[in-house]
Amino acid sequence: MQLTSTRISEAAGEIGTVFKFFSSYRAGKKPEEVLADLTFGNPHEMPLKGLVAALGKSIQPKDANWFAYKTSEAEPREVIASALSRELRLTFAPEDIAMTQGAFGAIATAFAVLSNPGDECVLPMPGWFCYPTILRSLGVTPVKVLLDQKSYDLDIKAIEAALTPRTRIVVVNTPHNPTGVIYSRQRLRELAELLERKSAESNRRIFILSDEPYRRIRFDGVGFTSPAEVYPWTLIDYSYGKILLAPGLRLGYLALGSHMPAGEREELQGTIMVAQVARGWGFPDAPLQHAVADLEKLSIDIPRLQAKRNRMLSALSRWGYEMTKPAGTFYLWGRAPGGNSVSFAQRLAERNVFIMPGTLFERPGEFRISLTATDEMIDASLPGFEALAPALAG
Amino acid sequence: MQLTSTRISEAAGEIGTVFKFFSSYRAGKKPEEVLADLTFGNPHEMPLKGLVAALGKSIQPKDANWFAYKTSEAEPREVIASALSRELRLTFAPEDIAMTQGAFGAIATAFAVLSNPGDECVLPMPGWFCYPTILRSLGVTPVKVLLDQKSYDLDIKAIEAALTPRTRIVVVNTPHNPTGVIYSRQRLRELAELLERKSAESNRRIFILSDEPYRRIRFDGVGFTSPAEVYPWTLIDYSYGKILLAPGLRLGYLALGSHMPAGEREELQGTIMVAQVARGWGFPDAPLQHAVADLEKLSIDIPRLQAKRNRMLSALSRWGYEMTKPAGTFYLWGRAPGGNSVSFAQRLAERNVFIMPGTLFERPGEFRISLTATDEMIDASLPGFEALAPALAG
Repeated sequence: MQLTSTRISEAAGEIGTVFKFFSSYRAGKKPEEVLADLTFGNPHEMPLKGLVAALGKSIQPKDANWFAYKTSEAEPREVIASALSRELRLTFAPEDIAMTQGAFGAIATAFAVLSNPGDECVLPMPGWFCYPTILRSLGVTPVKVLLDQKSYDLDIKAIEAALTPRTRIVVVNTPHNPTGVIYSRQRLRELAELLERKSAESNRRIFILSDEPYRRIRFDGVGFTSPAEVYPWTLIDYSYGKILLAPGLRLGYLALGSHMPAGEREELQGTIMVAQVARGWGFPDAPLQHAVADLEKLSIDIPRLQAKRNRMLSALSRWGYEMTKPAGTFYLWGRAPGGNSVSFAQRLAERNVFIMPGTLFERPGEFRISLTATDEMIDASLPGFEALAPALAG
Repeated sequence: MQLTSTRISEAAGEIGTVFKFFSSYRAGKKPEEVLADLTFGNPHEMPLKGLVAALGKSIQPKDANWFAYKTSEAEPREVIASALSRELRLTFAPEDIAMTQGAFGAIATAFAVLSNPGDECVLPMPGWFCYPTILRSLGVTPVKVLLDQKSYDLDIKAIEAALTPRTRIVVVNTPHNPTGVIYSRQRLRELAELLERKSAESNRRIFILSDEPYRRIRFDGVGFTSPAEVYPWTLIDYSYGKILLAPGLRLGYLALGSHMPAGEREELQGTIMVAQVARGWGFPDAPLQHAVADLEKLSIDIPRLQAKRNRMLSALSRWGYEMTKPAGTFYLWGRAPGGNSVSFAQRLAERNVFIMPGTLFERPGEFRISLTATDEMIDASLPGFEALAPALAG
């Protein structure tokens, strides 16, 4: 007899490659042997001092309710609505902001609120490897649509070809993991026009979920357009885990685009609250909610991250690697020498340098580097990349 | 066109009464007017000093990974497996413990892992008002079965009558919210025998979810038997939110009964992990995981809680209220004078005393009092109860 949920089995099928990689990629290596772990977007240096100070303040109770049940609390909602309005040139009300356990919680909530089993959700490929897992657990079908394979820009024609009357959500991830691309306002307008037309044709609203956890991690002074600016039926998810480089603190939000008609926004506000309860009380811990005003002011050192990007990118390019220059995020995305990212990752691992093969993104010919490594790790990794350079492989 | 998820709408239908009560029960009252809020199990006094000290330690980073992504971390799993083994006279391995965001997260995970849409889950009535919301969001049918209406003990015949080939889970909540009843080993054995027989008949395993967040909140030295002791296919959920009276810190676990056959236990371990990811990274915040060893040693003052129970219970009994004497939990459960808990709650509210009407538990003739109020609040509430006593109502 079948023991566990069919949907969770299907969800497991989507994340199996990631779990297997995670549990085995450093197998047999002692920590002191590892020269550079460039796999996951995890911290490799001590946390920000300002973060520790803000947490220290947040756990000092000022009243009896300090650690009481929290939902989406008034103060953090106000802080975020105000900051987000300035940042995106839109007008968010506090009620438009649902406090969530990271962007992950916001994404799971949005998927649960917007879709029914049998619906379809369009995902960018390559793209974050957890979307399909969440969708499968809800009985929603992930429809994986390739980005332009040269520029990694949104391919509007490919998205159009993937839309059906069952399409309920199109995920836009900008800045994009793993390529670092930030989509232009013009391209987002084209997407908005397409979705407006298709929603009208099928008499069923297609929503955009704009996954923006890297929104503030941008290089070279490049600007940012949220899909919420150009398409009213946009929900934005955000996480403080990236900008603080502290993903073990589950703090984020789901925001309703302020151009969304008021009636629909109100319906969504109520439904989001129910979905958060049904997910198992999906609200951030009390101390994090108390800390939002302080955390809003903090950031990792973006110029230093940009310098790491530059050093890595110029070294790899010099050695013949075909890399995408990221406009934002923690990541570098490129083509594996010889076209096989698994064997490339293995050969680097023999040199005690660890990268993420593109198989985790269903792109076996490509690979991802996380720039959250220290400067020392990046320096230490370079001889490995040089030794395996495409010039030598060819 | 329908905007939001059908399942979330159904989930909303189950929680609507609670939301409405929560948002309106103190409407128009200034905080200083409230003599006693005896509704939700929220704190009314400053947090435990030991809790603040443990949190203070937990946010001081000892390494670069301090706030990195956390799943079910090795150290808290070991601490809990060891403590739980001693407490329940069973043998839990660390891998049997999944770290969750409170009991709520553990319950949502267990429901997602064990059931498919169309399955049924047996719930005690009266019972915690969030089970049906979670189940509906998963497409699972809540089957509400009355407890014995005199003793509030498990009614094995009523449960048997409710079981069908679609039954997948029977929820046992001990100590029981809202009545405070702790089920005897004998009664749990009868339930185990029933479920063993019925699982064999339908060739489909029926699980017990043993919801035990109040397990350590017991009075008069009464013992405790977990269903996991008598039925191998038991999952236990627990929360630190009750014993620390800090429900805004989302820390709990889901434990697999150590009598469960090894193969099935391993399958569940893997599936639980996937379900936690799919729920939106349902693992506790990093600081709470670091703090588990310290938090395990802390408790609110149980003798003082027992004294509050005694004072309230003896006063109400003296005035003719029919109350159930709780063996554990924060709560007192009784029959509303006149048989209408909503009007009883309203009349108490006019005296600035607030209780929870039984309508939130689908039992309109009964009411719940939370003993998390201060001694002063309890004293201040007594004249209101005296004025509305059944002796006077009759």
